[in-house]
Amino acid sequence: MSKSFDLTKWLSDSAEKVNQALDFYLPPENQKPTTLHKAMRYSVFAGGKRVRPAVLLAATEACEGDRESALPLACAIECIHTYSLIHDDLPAMDNDDFRRGKLTSHKAFGEGIAILAGDGLLTEAFAIASRWKATERYTHKEITAELAHHSGSLQMVGGQAIDLESEGKAISLEELKYIHERKTSALLCLSTRLGAMNANATPEQLEALTTFGYKVGLAFQIIDDILDVTQSSEKLGKTAGKDAEVQKATYPALLGLEKSKTLASELTQDAFSILEIFGDKAAALRALAQYLLKRDH
Amino acid sequence: MSKSFDLTKWLSDSAEKVNQALDFYLPPENQKPTTLHKAMRYSVFAGGKRVRPAVLLAATEACEGDRESALPLACAIECIHTYSLIHDDLPAMDNDDFRRGKLTSHKAFGEGIAILAGDGLLTEAFAIASRWKATERYTHKEITAELAHHSGSLQMVGGQAIDLESEGKAISLEELKYIHERKTSALLCLSTRLGAMNANATPEQLEALTTFGYKVGLAFQIIDDILDVTQSSEKLGKTAGKDAEVQKATYPALLGLEKSKTLASELTQDAFSILEIFGDKAAALRALAQYLLKRDH
Repeated sequence: MSKSFDLTKWLSDSAEKVNQALDFYLPPENQKPTTLHKAMRYSVFAGGKRVRPAVLLAATEACEGDRESALPLACAIECIHTYSLIHDDLPAMDNDDFRRGKLTSHKAFGEGIAILAGDGLLTEAFAIASRWKATERYTHKEITAELAHHSGSLQMVGGQAIDLESEGKAISLEELKYIHERKTSALLCLSTRLGAMNANATPEQLEALTTFGYKVGLAFQIIDDILDVTQSSEKLGKTAGKDAEVQKATYPALLGLEKSKTLASELTQDAFSILEIFGDKAAALRALAQYLLKRDH
Repeated sequence: MSKSFDLTKWLSDSAEKVNQALDFYLPPENQKPTTLHKAMRYSVFAGGKRVRPAVLLAATEACEGDRESALPLACAIECIHTYSLIHDDLPAMDNDDFRRGKLTSHKAFGEGIAILAGDGLLTEAFAIASRWKATERYTHKEITAELAHHSGSLQMVGGQAIDLESEGKAISLEELKYIHERKTSALLCLSTRLGAMNANATPEQLEALTTFGYKVGLAFQIIDDILDVTQSSEKLGKTAGKDAEVQKATYPALLGLEKSKTLASELTQDAFSILEIFGDKAAALRALAQYLLKRDH
């Protein structure tokens, strides 16, 4: 049934809604402090594919929720994702000059403003989430706790910390999995969970989508590792081969390219089975998982 | 009536409650990622005077609330304050090696971990605030919005951005006021407001304490400027005379030392008048304002 689903249209429609909402929620560029707001918008509107918001909106549809009401949560996640990229790109971290074919924030605005733009976006994420309308089962107390848990020191930020400490060191596959779970699965789990909560999902639906988010997230990151060794910088819009250059542990490096590809496929197959209980309502989420696994950039 | 109030005992009692709560809420040092959690705790327990939590707890008492129930909000503000210090101290910002007589976070843990420890603490602030118990008038929706607004790009982070851009430039007194309002009044307003909200304050009480927080905050920052030119590094526990050295605009530099002192006193007198409607209940808040104005380090 997912064969007939027009994902391209659905994705472009979702991205448009998310972009309009982000433009509405974020302080305008001409509002003081203008450099800071320019920097925040520069990274938010740097051509990101809005993958996490799309997963959130598709998850809410899978539980019979509507996309409009989920927009504050979708924008909050995109702000968190963008802030993490700004800080990850800093010289003290991954030291990247380009992202998505554009100068990174610290290259365009200087390190100080880049740090503050990240701080501003992380804070703004919670401000935007506070504009969401609570449901019967899920209140702002839970939404705030969800956002903070998945993006905090035990999850996303924690993954970045271990990743930073592991650079140039030989680490085990188990350790690499720990990093990937936190650097990528964490926000995808958050996306599916917030989407479910926006639809006032049952505990069973919430649990199913949590596992789905986790598996797709891990597969997504393994594919990112694979693309870094198989694709050109031009196609990726960022410096390719960088992981190997800094001797960074990756799935292909630790497990081999073919086994990594197989593992990513298996994780996605597991994810597909989980979606069965949602039937046709999960058409977008199903198509999205296929898209994430089959992408070549 | 504030003459007979034992502020020293009240402050030490409040700080103990806040420290115990912070220790309870923050992930333990031995929890992975251990370096990150060590860095977060290193700065949180670096000997800060817990001024903002104290203001919050005193504000809640002024509105007949109790300190225990306000602790999640008090800890959230201290986490936000601490994260802002960690990021402000970075080489790309104020480039400070010492704070409160101890090495700054990036000197002790490296820049990458310091950035992440700040990110972790900002995120944790919202997680801790989500553990607060809502009142009849104020819900988690409002608390989250309050926290994000006062610490975000229009307030605290915005003040830091303008401050950063102003370094080495001649700026007007008006511009300096803009910076101080955001770098200091913002979090003190947030402290009084959250304290009031915890006590289910009336709109009138909330408004009065907002103005109080604003005035004390501005006075506090002017005094900080004054202390930087009049006190030694040893007494301050940080490098003194640094503002003048980098030709940073300060109230004494733009307005003169005596006029700056007078202005700080006037702001505090205004603040005292505001407290009259709270009567004896504001004893702690009144004593605290006197303490903040009369401090010499």
